[in-house]
Amino acid sequence: MWRPFFEQYHLIIVQDGDPSKTIKVPEGFDYELYNRNDINRILGPKASCISFKDSACRCFAYMVSKKKYIYTIDDDCFVAKDPSGKDINALEQHIKNLLCPATPFFFNTLYDPYREGADFVRGYPFSLREGAPTAVSHGLWLNIPDYDAPTQLVKPRERNTRYVDAVLTIPKGTLFPMCGMNLAFDRELIGPAMYFGLMGDGQPIGRYDDMWAGWCVKVICDHLGLGVKTGLPYIWHSKASNPFVNLKKEYKGIFWQEEIIPFFQSATLPKECTSVQKCYIELSKQVKEKLGAVDPYFNKLADAMVTWIEAWDELNNTSEQTSSKKAGQWGCQVNQSNIAFQSCGL
Amino acid sequence: MWRPFFEQYHLIIVQDGDPSKTIKVPEGFDYELYNRNDINRILGPKASCISFKDSACRCFAYMVSKKKYIYTIDDDCFVAKDPSGKDINALEQHIKNLLCPATPFFFNTLYDPYREGADFVRGYPFSLREGAPTAVSHGLWLNIPDYDAPTQLVKPRERNTRYVDAVLTIPKGTLFPMCGMNLAFDRELIGPAMYFGLMGDGQPIGRYDDMWAGWCVKVICDHLGLGVKTGLPYIWHSKASNPFVNLKKEYKGIFWQEEIIPFFQSATLPKECTSVQKCYIELSKQVKEKLGAVDPYFNKLADAMVTWIEAWDELNNTSEQTSSKKAGQWGCQVNQSNIAFQSCGL
Repeated sequence: MWRPFFEQYHLIIVQDGDPSKTIKVPEGFDYELYNRNDINRILGPKASCISFKDSACRCFAYMVSKKKYIYTIDDDCFVAKDPSGKDINALEQHIKNLLCPATPFFFNTLYDPYREGADFVRGYPFSLREGAPTAVSHGLWLNIPDYDAPTQLVKPRERNTRYVDAVLTIPKGTLFPMCGMNLAFDRELIGPAMYFGLMGDGQPIGRYDDMWAGWCVKVICDHLGLGVKTGLPYIWHSKASNPFVNLKKEYKGIFWQEEIIPFFQSATLPKECTSVQKCYIELSKQVKEKLGAVDPYFNKLADAMVTWIEAWDELNNTSEQTSSKKAGQWGCQVNQSNIAFQSCGL
Repeated sequence: MWRPFFEQYHLIIVQDGDPSKTIKVPEGFDYELYNRNDINRILGPKASCISFKDSACRCFAYMVSKKKYIYTIDDDCFVAKDPSGKDINALEQHIKNLLCPATPFFFNTLYDPYREGADFVRGYPFSLREGAPTAVSHGLWLNIPDYDAPTQLVKPRERNTRYVDAVLTIPKGTLFPMCGMNLAFDRELIGPAMYFGLMGDGQPIGRYDDMWAGWCVKVICDHLGLGVKTGLPYIWHSKASNPFVNLKKEYKGIFWQEEIIPFFQSATLPKECTSVQKCYIELSKQVKEKLGAVDPYFNKLADAMVTWIEAWDELNNTSEQTSSKKAGQWGCQVNQSNIAFQSCGL
């Protein structure tokens, strides 16, 4: 199903779980495949910052990629249709979103002013119409919405059927729940902040990997004057994960987020933080200082944030980075080899 | 055209221009009609705060109304159709927007979480799911978009054909260009801040009446913990106003807004400002202090802001206010008696 849309891109597949299992990648794709043994070999002791048995492991792909644009998608997501019945080319829309500026400093009531048929409305300051570079494009989901376990339990039959034909910039100073299901970003602008944290195996929490990344990314984008867009494109999310399993994973997060979000809402970064790496290291210090009291887990997470940046810098020599605007990359976390591929629709 | 939608509501019509002209109101409407002589008689010397020969005069209707919900609409706006071809009941959607809470403290990626078929997404803090009372519902426009004169001149043929099926809350701390063309608000929550300023006859500026109100309203809503929504409903905006005339009216505003917007973005109100009136008086002081240097006009405007509040309080005895949730009211500024009514579609 995805073949016509993904075939021309380079794929990085992170195989989660048992590395002795063999993954069959369908013919005709240009790909790299990494399992846990590869991650351990490449990162050595720094591999500790990459989660195991959790969708958070996908961020390893962001680190080893050499492309400018990254797209990451869950394995239960299919091609959605627009209201006219046409297949949506999600990647094409993400790349459009990333190539157009964002408008984080003032709200435009006709949504993305750079889209065809739209513009800045009366009263929009002219000095802000150049916009800001877009670092993140957050796509949405038809069919199964991205709900937490309590909402899944309360509304088991809810389906998202509303196609909202809009792309908009999340304003500066506003946090949002970033979902990793259908997400694209500019690796050169924000890559080192796209760390999905310590989740899953051996950790007290799961299903907050993308949320954690989203909070960090938004604070850093706001500091560096970068934009985050949300809205189009939609993908078709085929199946709801088990709400009971999810509740177990989310349990602590539900409490913790009540303290984490005010922390991020009030976090400020000093002027000296002029790169994503510097911002991220500074944020890790603040996490330790302010969230360490919530739970010792946050001290461990703060250390892992530092390890992540060290590993990133070790693997990435800035001068070597390609910056072709046409190149894209697709990162997919594979939970269980064959099944995962089937549900990836490749 | 509007008859089935407006017939059950109370109308207040503000006749702008020559008061000796007679306005013919079609049969079957419950209405009050005010011309300039009425405004002068009712407000006495305080009538100086109500603009003449400008759409800003409509705010007189907000002041004399005794209803909880106010809807204001331009005289060149018609009933729009949704994508299924059905007539849109704009007032019904505005009232829905105002009756549902808003979510100014955190962004929900599936837009209004209180709409049918939607909810808060994973990662939305549970402590914020009660939302905040909605004070303003800002509707949009199909066909002729609300562009400034330079954009009108550059894109004379642009039409808005995109129906975006969303209502969303403009986050706390973010300003937006509030257009008075299709606007509803809760008079009890925010009424005294809905002052459309000094525009038109004898003033150096026009077409910033709704913008001025929007900046003040948003700063006060943010301070008082109230929400502002934008999106649905759409109306059909039939004709673009003359871009050359508009440029003349907007000319100074285009420059001034570059200083006004940073002023409002950084404006803070002290804790003691616990009512809209107190907030507005405080804001008027800051306008004088900070914008007086931009142009003497702002000293005059700051004084008019105080006069407006004095007039509001004189006319409105809080204990007398009705608070029926079913009552609504429609304020329309009428430029030229008969023509205006024809184009109002009544």
